[in-house]
Amino acid sequence: MSTTASSEHKDPQSVGIVETKIARFDSLTLDNGEIISPLEIAYETYGTLSEKKDNAILVCHALSGDAHAAGFHEGDKRPGWWDFYIGPDKAFDTDKYFIISSNVIGGCKGSSGPLTISNATNKAYRSSFPFVSIADMVRAQEILVSSFGIETLFAVAGGSMGGMQALQWSVAYPEKMKNCIVMASTAEHSAQQIAFNEVGRQAILADPNWNNGMYEDDTKPAKGLALARMMGHITYLSDEMMRDKFGRKPPKGNIQTTDFAVGSYLIYQGESFVDRFDANSYIYVTKALDHYSLGTGKELTKALSGVKCRFLVVAYTSDWLYPPYQSEEIVKSLEVNAIPVIFVELNNPAGHDSFLLQSEEQDSIIKDFLEFTDDPDGVIYG
Amino acid sequence: MSTTASSEHKDPQSVGIVETKIARFDSLTLDNGEIISPLEIAYETYGTLSEKKDNAILVCHALSGDAHAAGFHEGDKRPGWWDFYIGPDKAFDTDKYFIISSNVIGGCKGSSGPLTISNATNKAYRSSFPFVSIADMVRAQEILVSSFGIETLFAVAGGSMGGMQALQWSVAYPEKMKNCIVMASTAEHSAQQIAFNEVGRQAILADPNWNNGMYEDDTKPAKGLALARMMGHITYLSDEMMRDKFGRKPPKGNIQTTDFAVGSYLIYQGESFVDRFDANSYIYVTKALDHYSLGTGKELTKALSGVKCRFLVVAYTSDWLYPPYQSEEIVKSLEVNAIPVIFVELNNPAGHDSFLLQSEEQDSIIKDFLEFTDDPDGVIYG
Repeated sequence: MSTTASSEHKDPQSVGIVETKIARFDSLTLDNGEIISPLEIAYETYGTLSEKKDNAILVCHALSGDAHAAGFHEGDKRPGWWDFYIGPDKAFDTDKYFIISSNVIGGCKGSSGPLTISNATNKAYRSSFPFVSIADMVRAQEILVSSFGIETLFAVAGGSMGGMQALQWSVAYPEKMKNCIVMASTAEHSAQQIAFNEVGRQAILADPNWNNGMYEDDTKPAKGLALARMMGHITYLSDEMMRDKFGRKPPKGNIQTTDFAVGSYLIYQGESFVDRFDANSYIYVTKALDHYSLGTGKELTKALSGVKCRFLVVAYTSDWLYPPYQSEEIVKSLEVNAIPVIFVELNNPAGHDSFLLQSEEQDSIIKDFLEFTDDPDGVIYG
Repeated sequence: MSTTASSEHKDPQSVGIVETKIARFDSLTLDNGEIISPLEIAYETYGTLSEKKDNAILVCHALSGDAHAAGFHEGDKRPGWWDFYIGPDKAFDTDKYFIISSNVIGGCKGSSGPLTISNATNKAYRSSFPFVSIADMVRAQEILVSSFGIETLFAVAGGSMGGMQALQWSVAYPEKMKNCIVMASTAEHSAQQIAFNEVGRQAILADPNWNNGMYEDDTKPAKGLALARMMGHITYLSDEMMRDKFGRKPPKGNIQTTDFAVGSYLIYQGESFVDRFDANSYIYVTKALDHYSLGTGKELTKALSGVKCRFLVVAYTSDWLYPPYQSEEIVKSLEVNAIPVIFVELNNPAGHDSFLLQSEEQDSIIKDFLEFTDDPDGVIYG
């Protein structure tokens, strides 16, 4: 289970070369009664599982993420999506912890989802794959975690949709985790959050290649998916960051179709996204997000009444897609339940994507939270 | 030039039944040197022009607006877009003022634009219509205003794009207006504002019916335009208002394609928009918006240095598309130039659309500003 840095990546803080593995299980019964069989889960691990199996941390990815959270795939120049925070001496210190990262079911990065080949038809399920909820994603993860012989996770952590999964873990498996880190997230989507996802889905449905989701690989609804991504991308950034990065500058490329730098950037983001993501999965995963709800106020407090772990909740002032008030809702409900929680609102200017970006402050906040586990009240920030 | 309330609309505060007229002029030379000939301007007027011709107010519409600002078209149930504020005893009091409202050139509501029939081809110009700027729109309006024999407008007023036109009037024709009302607007679009328009334009360009803008009436890029409108619509509302109005409720209709009330609402908005707006005009008008720039800071101060009228600038705390800081930029630059300005930030929860919605507070703010014109410092709010 250990990972060694290769000669190519000599950064002592990198986990080095890694690869995604596929774990195969008999089946998973979903919330709606449908069954995924076999259940395949793509995952990566970093660091070494202790003999007591008490040092495992599950990290959960966001909408377009995958199992590749840290280190480099052979030949790649860019590391995994949370490489800033996973590695020797980093927030999720691979010298101490055994990190598990898996792709969500319903996604398109190796775990069971719309691209899985159906044994019945020998073709991809596409839109005939069953609806998957955030709770279903978490139950698939629990099967993977158990397969390592791990009874209790030291922590579950994630941002955005990953934060929803971490929160759901604390509700579904209160005895199986000690710490929960929820960043830039919410206990349920607001109408505005649903609306942005909805327009993305409608863009895919409007693509002439959509074919009710039963498209072939060479006739994908690429334009619709690109539009969904372009729009989503605006919501991941802040007004301030966009002004600093693009302002009103002219385009870099795509001058036939846009007059502005922010336009050519978004077009590029859309076009490159369709090479690495599937339109059906975009619909499945955004629907899972939109349907997830632990409620607000008293309903949320009740939903969190059985939770047993410590919490770190991180929000960003500049995150207008998952505004800090949604994190505060979670914190309030935890406090009513007398569950130890540290809440930090950071001034990082990068908007929703802040949880993914490098920040020494964020690194030490996570590290301190994980290290001071014997103090039930934890450290106080902010 | 006077308008009389019809028997059908006996509301003493309504201007009653009105109709849009077309004024025709020889030509207009645009910023880029191209010529629109003939120049046609669709307009409506409400109230009576005084003998001295000193009581005229030009109101300027936003992106999807038209000349029909107040009263009812024969047979219509819904009045014009600013009916809350135009009429006897309303903010723009038709017992006192002569209100002129015209459709922007480049639009699709009767003024010269992509739907105009070219004499050369006997077909609509479509995307061969020349690029139109906000300054061009304003110059067309000046031709219309002059045709009434009006030398000086009592006021120019508008929200959003209408606010940009009002601001541009103050710069282009400083001697020809006494008062300027700029609501929910900006002196230039930010990268984020451009980005939302850009994705809307890309949705139209991605429609298989787009045909470089040379589509026919029976093969319009309706899906692309509907998507642009759906996305735009999210930005016109506030998070809070969407939560109150839709929350996480199930859809009303469209249950095949959406799971949520906010989804069915947006789909309806998109579908109904394509019946009343043209895709080329959407591109022309949003490009005019995105290209308009009086700058910020010292550049804006310089741009406004020749302005001679009084200003009322109104922003809304909940307007995240045209955030109050953009209004404050205008106010600061006016103040540096010692130009009398009243700035009001309202707590109306409706987001960007607030300037269109009924508000007694807003009504009296506009009315007071227009009435107290002899006091150069005006009234103080907030």
